[in-house]
Amino acid sequence: MSEFGGPSPQPTIGTSRLEAFSDGVMAVIITITALSLKAPLSGSFEALSRRLPELLVYILSFTFVGIYWNNHHHLLRVTDHISAGVMWANLHLLFWLSLIPVVTEWVGSFYGDHWPAATYGIVALGSAIAFGILVVAIIRANGRDSAVGRAVGSNRKGNISVALYAGGVGLAFLSPYAAYAVYAVVAIIWFVPDRRFERPVAAPFPD
Amino acid sequence: MSEFGGPSPQPTIGTSRLEAFSDGVMAVIITITALSLKAPLSGSFEALSRRLPELLVYILSFTFVGIYWNNHHHLLRVTDHISAGVMWANLHLLFWLSLIPVVTEWVGSFYGDHWPAATYGIVALGSAIAFGILVVAIIRANGRDSAVGRAVGSNRKGNISVALYAGGVGLAFLSPYAAYAVYAVVAIIWFVPDRRFERPVAAPFPD
Amino acid sequence: MSEFGGPSPQPTIGTSRLEAFSDGVMAVIITITALSLKAPLSGSFEALSRRLPELLVYILSFTFVGIYWNNHHHLLRVTDHISAGVMWANLHLLFWLSLIPVVTEWVGSFYGDHWPAATYGIVALGSAIAFGILVVAIIRANGRDSAVGRAVGSNRKGNISVALYAGGVGLAFLSPYAAYAVYAVVAIIWFVPDRRFERPVAAPFPD
Amino acid sequence: MSEFGGPSPQPTIGTSRLEAFSDGVMAVIITITALSLKAPLSGSFEALSRRLPELLVYILSFTFVGIYWNNHHHLLRVTDHISAGVMWANLHLLFWLSLIPVVTEWVGSFYGDHWPAATYGIVALGSAIAFGILVVAIIRANGRDSAVGRAVGSNRKGNISVALYAGGVGLAFLSPYAAYAVYAVVAIIWFVPDRRFERPVAAPFPD
Repeated sequence: MSEFGGPSPQPTIGTSRLEAFSDGVMAVIITITALSLKAPLSGSFEALSRRLPELLVYILSFTFVGIYWNNHHHLLRVTDHISAGVMWANLHLLFWLSLIPVVTEWVGSFYGDHWPAATYGIVALGSAIAFGILVVAIIRANGRDSAVGRAVGSNRKGNISVALYAGGVGLAFLSPYAAYAVYAVVAIIWFVPDRRFERPVAAPFPD
Repeated sequence: MSEFGGPSPQPTIGTSRLEAFSDGVMAVIITITALSLKAPLSGSFEALSRRLPELLVYILSFTFVGIYWNNHHHLLRVTDHISAGVMWANLHLLFWLSLIPVVTEWVGSFYGDHWPAATYGIVALGSAIAFGILVVAIIRANGRDSAVGRAVGSNRKGNISVALYAGGVGLAFLSPYAAYAVYAVVAIIWFVPDRRFERPVAAPFPD
Repeated sequence: MSEFGGPSPQPTIGTSRLEAFSDGVMAVIITITALSLKAPLSGSFEALSRRLPELLVYILSFTFVGIYWNNHHHLLRVTDHISAGVMWANLHLLFWLSLIPVVTEWVGSFYGDHWPAATYGIVALGSAIAFGILVVAIIRANGRDSAVGRAVGSNRKGNISVALYAGGVGLAFLSPYAAYAVYAVVAIIWFVPDRRFERPVAAPFPD
Repeated sequence: MSEFGGPSPQPTIGTSRLEAFSDGVMAVIITITALSLKAPLSGSFEALSRRLPELLVYILSFTFVGIYWNNHHHLLRVTDHISAGVMWANLHLLFWLSLIPVVTEWVGSFYGDHWPAATYGIVALGSAIAFGILVVAIIRANGRDSAVGRAVGSNRKGNISVALYAGGVGLAFLSPYAAYAVYAVVAIIWFVPDRRFERPVAAPFPD
């Protein structure tokens, strides 16, 4: 790795444990978010139906974390090496994602207010920026000519997401519902998986 | 994988990380469900015995998630390739399973009411349909002639489960206890492991 | 595996995913148990010190789950094959362990009462019996002459634990504190790791 | 491993399952800590801003656990063998880390009081000492001449952390805020990853 054979300041590490830890954190986040769905307060249909907004926000958050897990998986699959910077960039992404359960709960309880809608967007925005930073850190650790460097190309979808989330945060102060619509649009954009990482670059990647 | 060597629209991915993430989510779900068992409110036997219905529902839910983990394990063991569609079909299954803790808690508190019993069945029904979709997506990604394609054959047990759960949901409005009995019957049916995936197709599968 | 080359009714499966799932469940159990330690109700030392009994029970439960993880690890390390029966025996063990968080919380709140102390012992007893069943199921799946079959030999420690836990449950109705002392003694017995599985049988095991 | 071919009293075990379990526990801890961030009680900005101290403590705790995961990863990467002592030393470390969620919640609620600030420091101190014990146990199991033995060298950063945390605990009784500042300083010291384990000792480590 170090071209000089000596101790390199930024040696490279394999990706397996980073993936395992990230999977663990995202698995817990996605499940803990379900705890924001509190059991209805009585056994009636009315009590159940009062949980509908929470269920809708939960579906949005589940999809949100699912998209990040999916993209994280695709990104790491073509990544050969991890540096210390990548490890911190990855933890930074997990930090933002770890705020999803609490903002989901807040939006579920006060979905008609401006600040919960805006805060949800800020967490989504932070996650999107953190994913962008992770991509940059990984390309820096692997080089522009690496499999991941060639696979990434531009980060158009990521940039569009950041712009839409920023717009959604602003919009939340006019109408929370318009903000939720924007967040859902971003989810739909990402729902279509990222062809960049799925297209085999040279040969089918061993998994 | 692509016979033409060029970029294929639906390239295939190995199963290891999908299994790891699914295991993580199911492990958290099964444990989080135990949180629906709230500690008795005093140190007396009466306080303990008042938790008995919750314990019974918990046993049903634990078995339910255990069966899905088991079947998921058997299904993925004979699967070679994962497509983007499989990843979303898998997340869709995990979504339904992630609702188990909250419906378990609701049924535990209001087991004598119609709607908790029906909602439990709807979540079970959604999970069963989602598992069916996952099987279809996996066979589509691997081909009818693949190990998994030949191993699955018919989905008789799955179809019976869907029918029984749908019946249970309806029955819940007549008697919640009859609905619980139906759900328990489905669990017993699945408890016997799925021979389709355990029978070695050509050679003992490497694990 | 099947000596006749044909489809065997009880084919064998590798241990990796069983270990991963069990690790996940035990990792969540051990951490969720910490949630039974509720934050003190004020910022004073008195509020903190009122949490001392809960901390002591938590230490006991943490050690308890740690011992099971440890023994599970040692057992699976010398296991080659898993049958459907082993998978259910393993889930049965995880079921009992999943009750640890709620009984820990109950004992932490009502440590001076008989029933919490007895219930804790019943869960410990159930776990010990479930571990014994798992050992039997694994030996049945691998044969008496397998590495695990020869490694296990007798289950003396397990039988002693079952007897002590049963005694502890009875003792709880005379004095809860005597019961806790018995449970702690079992923990100390197991704390010394199980030589049966650590002694290399033929060659150092690949891990 | 045993040079005499016979049963050795302290045989060695590979690191993979220890890493998987530790990753699982740390992943749950880091996510459960986020539950200490309770959703604001109304949809207003005032309600949100009242959560700021909790958010700051959460960031400190997230970084804290992230640092341990990072260091644990680096330590285990150069470790070849695990003994029973290492397994218990590792569980001991996880025990201290598992107290992070509850002390984070306590500090978040009563950040201006002496005892929460001191208790946070005691948990941090316990974790730092436990990590030191783990390093010693690993070197004992692998030998001074092993890759890990040569990589570790001195434990200067660890000793400085222990001293700073001890000082922070004392300082908490003068000013909680000064204590938090000391804890943050330790985090910054560790944030820079540990070169000892990243420097390739002989050849790039397979991961």
